[in-house]
Amino acid sequence: MPALTFDDPLLRSWAFYSGLLMLKMLGMSIYTGATRMKHKAFANPEDGATLKVKPRVDENVERIRRAHLNDIENIPPFVVLSWLYVMTNPSAGFATMLFRAAAAGRFLHTLVYAVVPLPQPARAIAFFVPYGICWYMGIQAVMHFIS
Amino acid sequence: MPALTFDDPLLRSWAFYSGLLMLKMLGMSIYTGATRMKHKAFANPEDGATLKVKPRVDENVERIRRAHLNDIENIPPFVVLSWLYVMTNPSAGFATMLFRAAAAGRFLHTLVYAVVPLPQPARAIAFFVPYGICWYMGIQAVMHFIS
Amino acid sequence: MPALTFDDPLLRSWAFYSGLLMLKMLGMSIYTGATRMKHKAFANPEDGATLKVKPRVDENVERIRRAHLNDIENIPPFVVLSWLYVMTNPSAGFATMLFRAAAAGRFLHTLVYAVVPLPQPARAIAFFVPYGICWYMGIQAVMHFIS
Repeated sequence: MPALTFDDPLLRSWAFYSGLLMLKMLGMSIYTGATRMKHKAFANPEDGATLKVKPRVDENVERIRRAHLNDIENIPPFVVLSWLYVMTNPSAGFATMLFRAAAAGRFLHTLVYAVVPLPQPARAIAFFVPYGICWYMGIQAVMHFIS
Repeated sequence: MPALTFDDPLLRSWAFYSGLLMLKMLGMSIYTGATRMKHKAFANPEDGATLKVKPRVDENVERIRRAHLNDIENIPPFVVLSWLYVMTNPSAGFATMLFRAAAAGRFLHTLVYAVVPLPQPARAIAFFVPYGICWYMGIQAVMHFIS
Repeated sequence: MPALTFDDPLLRSWAFYSGLLMLKMLGMSIYTGATRMKHKAFANPEDGATLKVKPRVDENVERIRRAHLNDIENIPPFVVLSWLYVMTNPSAGFATMLFRAAAAGRFLHTLVYAVVPLPQPARAIAFFVPYGICWYMGIQAVMHFIS
């Protein structure tokens, strides 16, 4: 296996989709913050001090927080497992197709969970596409690197 | 230090245990989902719509969610800190022993927390083995890379 | 782009600050555990069994858990996005300045959130410095690796 360089298409593809999904996950903090402001629903006394509101739980905020937590449960594993998968030297074209489908799934998941809540199975489908891809890549990697 | 290649035993070992633990962490989502179904305890109105149940909190589900959160707090740090530790060029045999003990601890942690709950200190021991290993590897790395 | 080696100043700097922040995040577990002990506020029946206390929610513990969750939302993205940023081959001096400011922000965030709670905007400022740096590095990386 050659030394790792970041000019080959496979690593560039991994870097692009990993960066994109990490930024998407970071975006949830702003979305939560804006929704807390809109509904005046804060987690700490000091956050609502100037508005003179006490901490309270608001379902609009909680829904976004659940979407954020779901990102946390799935996006860092995607970044690690796709990195390990890249190290098994798959075809760049096929790997990129997987990364693209997984990324699309994660964006759609937030859309149907926290932006425009849709009836199930919309969220389940958006969840299971990247989830299945993570399992596929992880199993490939674990099988490849087993001693 | 040589260029990074994924054919040496140290990196293969890191890749194997990191992949395994990430898959283990992903498995918690399925376990939570199955337990939500079994107890008809969902987080969102749309999830229980076909069963005509309202969202509710169930302690069986919450216990698994706490085990999952504990994975989230510990497994990504393990992956990063062991990667940094690998970059300090330790012996492959010793590093593999650490990875194996940490992985065993994380699997046992979930077992005694969320599968067959045991009295303390079962969970504390399962927690502190990988936790201590993470601190050891992290301190080694930080000392090595301090400028 | 040259092969990846861990003896250049840029990668050493990335490794140092990533390791430091991951250890800082791990430290939150101990802080939560100690605060649970102090206030006899545990999440599980087995944890308070020897002290004969039932699980209960305590605001002192919850504040630390919120600070910990904020680390989880921000520190793994920092590690990944700064890694991708390093791969775009920035100047080591400028990158190190960013890493240092982001790390300082995350330590201060915990200090003013969970150690010595201060009125806003103390926490907001400590939050937005590393958050903005993550966005900057992530956008640089995504633009660099777009095919």
